[in-house]
Amino acid sequence: MDFSSPKKGFPKKRCGVLGCTGSVGQRFSLLLAEHPHFELVAVGASERSSGKTYKEATTWKTSGSMPENIGELTVTLCDPQHFKHCDVVFSGLDSSVAGEVEDRFLKENIPVFSNAKNHRQDPSVPLVVPTVNISHLDYIKVQRESNGLDKGFLVCNSNCAVIGIVIPLAAIQASCGAIDGLSVVTNQAVSGAGFPGPSMMEMMDNWIPYISGEEDKMQPESRKILGQYDVEGKALVDRTDLKVSATCNRVAVTDGHGACVSVRFADRSKVPSAEQVKQAMKDYVSEVQKMECPSAPEKAIAVMEEADRPQPKLDRDAGRGYTITVGRVREDPSGFCDIIFTALSHNTVIGASGSSILNAEAAVLKGYL
Amino acid sequence: MDFSSPKKGFPKKRCGVLGCTGSVGQRFSLLLAEHPHFELVAVGASERSSGKTYKEATTWKTSGSMPENIGELTVTLCDPQHFKHCDVVFSGLDSSVAGEVEDRFLKENIPVFSNAKNHRQDPSVPLVVPTVNISHLDYIKVQRESNGLDKGFLVCNSNCAVIGIVIPLAAIQASCGAIDGLSVVTNQAVSGAGFPGPSMMEMMDNWIPYISGEEDKMQPESRKILGQYDVEGKALVDRTDLKVSATCNRVAVTDGHGACVSVRFADRSKVPSAEQVKQAMKDYVSEVQKMECPSAPEKAIAVMEEADRPQPKLDRDAGRGYTITVGRVREDPSGFCDIIFTALSHNTVIGASGSSILNAEAAVLKGYL
Amino acid sequence: MDFSSPKKGFPKKRCGVLGCTGSVGQRFSLLLAEHPHFELVAVGASERSSGKTYKEATTWKTSGSMPENIGELTVTLCDPQHFKHCDVVFSGLDSSVAGEVEDRFLKENIPVFSNAKNHRQDPSVPLVVPTVNISHLDYIKVQRESNGLDKGFLVCNSNCAVIGIVIPLAAIQASCGAIDGLSVVTNQAVSGAGFPGPSMMEMMDNWIPYISGEEDKMQPESRKILGQYDVEGKALVDRTDLKVSATCNRVAVTDGHGACVSVRFADRSKVPSAEQVKQAMKDYVSEVQKMECPSAPEKAIAVMEEADRPQPKLDRDAGRGYTITVGRVREDPSGFCDIIFTALSHNTVIGASGSSILNAEAAVLKGYL
Amino acid sequence: MDFSSPKKGFPKKRCGVLGCTGSVGQRFSLLLAEHPHFELVAVGASERSSGKTYKEATTWKTSGSMPENIGELTVTLCDPQHFKHCDVVFSGLDSSVAGEVEDRFLKENIPVFSNAKNHRQDPSVPLVVPTVNISHLDYIKVQRESNGLDKGFLVCNSNCAVIGIVIPLAAIQASCGAIDGLSVVTNQAVSGAGFPGPSMMEMMDNWIPYISGEEDKMQPESRKILGQYDVEGKALVDRTDLKVSATCNRVAVTDGHGACVSVRFADRSKVPSAEQVKQAMKDYVSEVQKMECPSAPEKAIAVMEEADRPQPKLDRDAGRGYTITVGRVREDPSGFCDIIFTALSHNTVIGASGSSILNAEAAVLKGYL
Repeated sequence: MDFSSPKKGFPKKRCGVLGCTGSVGQRFSLLLAEHPHFELVAVGASERSSGKTYKEATTWKTSGSMPENIGELTVTLCDPQHFKHCDVVFSGLDSSVAGEVEDRFLKENIPVFSNAKNHRQDPSVPLVVPTVNISHLDYIKVQRESNGLDKGFLVCNSNCAVIGIVIPLAAIQASCGAIDGLSVVTNQAVSGAGFPGPSMMEMMDNWIPYISGEEDKMQPESRKILGQYDVEGKALVDRTDLKVSATCNRVAVTDGHGACVSVRFADRSKVPSAEQVKQAMKDYVSEVQKMECPSAPEKAIAVMEEADRPQPKLDRDAGRGYTITVGRVREDPSGFCDIIFTALSHNTVIGASGSSILNAEAAVLKGYL
Repeated sequence: MDFSSPKKGFPKKRCGVLGCTGSVGQRFSLLLAEHPHFELVAVGASERSSGKTYKEATTWKTSGSMPENIGELTVTLCDPQHFKHCDVVFSGLDSSVAGEVEDRFLKENIPVFSNAKNHRQDPSVPLVVPTVNISHLDYIKVQRESNGLDKGFLVCNSNCAVIGIVIPLAAIQASCGAIDGLSVVTNQAVSGAGFPGPSMMEMMDNWIPYISGEEDKMQPESRKILGQYDVEGKALVDRTDLKVSATCNRVAVTDGHGACVSVRFADRSKVPSAEQVKQAMKDYVSEVQKMECPSAPEKAIAVMEEADRPQPKLDRDAGRGYTITVGRVREDPSGFCDIIFTALSHNTVIGASGSSILNAEAAVLKGYL
Repeated sequence: MDFSSPKKGFPKKRCGVLGCTGSVGQRFSLLLAEHPHFELVAVGASERSSGKTYKEATTWKTSGSMPENIGELTVTLCDPQHFKHCDVVFSGLDSSVAGEVEDRFLKENIPVFSNAKNHRQDPSVPLVVPTVNISHLDYIKVQRESNGLDKGFLVCNSNCAVIGIVIPLAAIQASCGAIDGLSVVTNQAVSGAGFPGPSMMEMMDNWIPYISGEEDKMQPESRKILGQYDVEGKALVDRTDLKVSATCNRVAVTDGHGACVSVRFADRSKVPSAEQVKQAMKDYVSEVQKMECPSAPEKAIAVMEEADRPQPKLDRDAGRGYTITVGRVREDPSGFCDIIFTALSHNTVIGASGSSILNAEAAVLKGYL
Repeated sequence: MDFSSPKKGFPKKRCGVLGCTGSVGQRFSLLLAEHPHFELVAVGASERSSGKTYKEATTWKTSGSMPENIGELTVTLCDPQHFKHCDVVFSGLDSSVAGEVEDRFLKENIPVFSNAKNHRQDPSVPLVVPTVNISHLDYIKVQRESNGLDKGFLVCNSNCAVIGIVIPLAAIQASCGAIDGLSVVTNQAVSGAGFPGPSMMEMMDNWIPYISGEEDKMQPESRKILGQYDVEGKALVDRTDLKVSATCNRVAVTDGHGACVSVRFADRSKVPSAEQVKQAMKDYVSEVQKMECPSAPEKAIAVMEEADRPQPKLDRDAGRGYTITVGRVREDPSGFCDIIFTALSHNTVIGASGSSILNAEAAVLKGYL
């Protein structure tokens, strides 16, 4: 599978990956190894791996086998000094260390795109879903100014489960008016838990009605992503009126997070029909698509008409994992909510590493990199 | 596993099963074969099976192997004349034929408890979940009167997915006030689809965001079960103010339906706390428990405090499949709804055949059988 | 995934598929839709589908969705008159009808490559595994002669489970001497059973120690494929000294058949070491590779050194499904057999339709098509 | 499920469990908690658990929840001083510590039944499968003599995968003559790997063709179990002529190990028919059955006639996990071997803890305890 298409005139960039041996780090490395313009030149991990070749240090779990062109890189510690030659660094670090390490990279003027949760709620760090709020990248100017930097910055991508809410909401709100409340129940894949993840004994003939810490991220991350960058006030302003009521389940699926979403519109006098909502999602074209970022999918959202779609096995790879599929769009016959739909996203591509790659491509095209 | 305990003075009853070769019929037969007071004496199926022994006619899928004491019964057609010696008949018929067959049995003055959907919405047929609305059995008097019967009647049990809503709601409303709206997302087991059910190729590493016809049953069945039998007006009165917004998923689990439920209380000035809701469910004792029906579970609802329960594999067999387990009871921090919880029920016991068995036991103790 | 590479000078051929709506037929159509030189121009099925477009007639299960370029073909009956404009026809017919239909096509002088079992044991029909005995295609001359044909012929591909034996044996025997006995236990994927295949309820947390009819095919098909085409005697001569002792299991895997094989060499004085056997498989280059058939894999056999490989999920797609992977090659420490190994093959590519496609490519290059 | 029936006159015995928090230790505790004559009075584990109650120290994974009557026991270190009040101790210790700890218990004159592999090959320790070689318990006299003990001893149970070979072989050899070679391919459950065992991501849609160390145990353990206790020579004599050629696979099943076995008889002039072999297994009654041990199953082997049995899900619980099921008994049509069959055993009952419990019951009845 090709993850991205080359774009004429797009400059070459040297990239590093922090936390390269973990599941998110491996996905970063795979996407970079196959990228037409980004080149993986530095990989960092903990002391246990430092000094080994990437191949020796890693139990590769992400696909058939580790791409040959990156296996011979030498793993270093996650210290800025080893990443000075990088134009940009991607952080797949565990949250136990990510906060402190990323701060040091920022101080050392090195641009970082992070998948870790540590800085997502930090008001001085943009939280960017590429097919939703790429405009928040412009906040980089404010961030640089206040940190006295000319090159470095720190941008986060969102939690994998938030994707199923914010992308459809961005599309719907663009033409149907504001949504101010929703109830979401997710069915999330085991790969979201990293390696090795839940055991066979636990998941076989079963699902788990809980994912530690997950539900708490849904409302604040959604509010921030769907918020605005106030240029005048030089601040990121959250959508504080948005209520997100969440229940997160783990199911026996390898990849692909599903979200069953019921929404309510703010303006009770102008509730759209299911057809209008579907049309809004079909019409939606995000900025990364308009900019023709190399990894941008043809469609940010693919709307399915079949009654029994989307399904993880059949639909997670839509748009090479960058497209989310939405189906079962319908009016709520009970009137308890307005519109109900089911969304499916590839949790390790658009829901994690892929988001940061696409964010970085946009940063290049916007001149921040 | 013993499915019920003998009760002193409980009379012996001769029972028949309609649709005996299907998955619901097999479960009826298994529960009756192991019942201390009910005896299976007649089994009916379609022309293909008629004349064969039950053992010959059936590909047994319900447990290790068909109980020996019932294998030698001769299968007949589902004609009332072959069931005249039965005190009661249980219908596991497919909905393509159930409506018409059950009408004939009613006309022939034979009591029928049915799992089929055909008459559930019929205002002249009680729809009874044993641990919720056993009082609706008293409507049998009206039904007999209007049909000129002295012995026969027709009572339905509910859809398997409705159970996860109505049992908790009955308990909560009993002490916390009326609920008038809810959003529910179910994760339902493949056994709910009967034999053979979804294929391995379809379900492996997957789940299906749709079950044909299922969502449409949720609101009307809930409204009827949670309604009242108006003795004066001789009518079953639905809870028409209750809004049930439903999304039904099929997951890779053999038995056990889960329901993620978010509820809103009618009286906005008296919304209970999560602790009060939990206590309401812990305190709940249904009528079949008070009557000490042989198959009544010790608890109608088992409330779990562990963060990651209930789980289908661990909890579906609670109370021999007659208890539903409820966990994750919490206040909705977003304020979109009031209380959120996850319920799990055994879809082929309390969610189907077991419900009708328990209904029949109550009917015996109430003198209708 | 690209299934084959274009080859300069390879002529265009118009192709038909018989049994186009079934699982084997769908795979034939998919491989042809993506083929650089073969063009799908005719599709046949039973009366139920005849007259509809291919898209209307088919519940597509083989990949995301049916390739667009073939969906508009009109399905006809499997009658030779509708396939006169085809250069070659691929039969994915069910064995209940394949024998008779294929005979009619042969009589009508239309070349047929069949996946059905009906003619596999017929001494006048070559049974060809492309990476093993492509030389048997030369028997087409004899077949044509005795049927008075100038264009038509009938060639079968083997059963999907036989592949795990004959490809390694061909390679080993090529440099280590004859094997005259073996014991094989297979773990076969559910896709081998066609649509819909075993149910979730049956396969979950389970495997089935039996596949109807499968074990009986193992010895005769192996003997025929590993036999010789005796040019002088104008006959296909089986390896009648080869003993194949087989046990076939069905496991909860979507695609990929495994075979645990223990072999004994005929010459007890010259039993090779595990290293020699591995080398033999590494060195093996089949005729279709030498001929550079468009779909020929780079390696007929990929030998794995990791202790826990091959695994269906990780290795079935090796060589786009045309390469078989072999691992755990070791000397039998007990001395009961000589060499033990585990082989894995993609049952719907090299184990079925893909084999016939590759056979057809070789037939083109050898001038029979 | 009741695991054993009370036996009149059977004395009460106080029992301890070493390694009580692990998967084998949990199963020991469960079987003892439900045992009519054995009482669990002491539980030992590592420093991490020592001092806590058993309930606090343990993540219970073996069934719904830990039996209440044992949860309040205080966990001690695995030091003999804490087990002086035990009549017998069961060792579910990990092999990294079992060898040394069990030696100390032996020295301290405390009887030990062990599931660990450490002493299985020790010629001074009986290796006993209760339904096969209970007579080897008499070697306890020799062991005590040479260690100067009057009460203590050490007896091991076998590896879980060996069960599928030795029980059928004991039965067949009892009436059909000696078997001197066999090829076995196993499909083993994930619970055999302890907690947490293989991950979902690894096992989903997959199986693993290797279990570390497993194949090496098959021949030596089989030879010892099927050997004789030579009373005169005071030695356990192995069946050194028996060749066991083994391949061990891990499959996506929670409990239940399968073995596909092909055997060859020593006397080539007297090879039995499949019917004779089946009859031998049907007729087989082991000593623990004759002695009426409380946990002895009604049948040591259940022979199945259905073509597609035994299956893990349907048959692992036969005889409460103490019966093994054997099916597909047939003559090898190829002549490569003589008789082929498939055996299934519950790996955590008869294949582990249950074996030691049954051995202990026999030791009581034989006067060693």
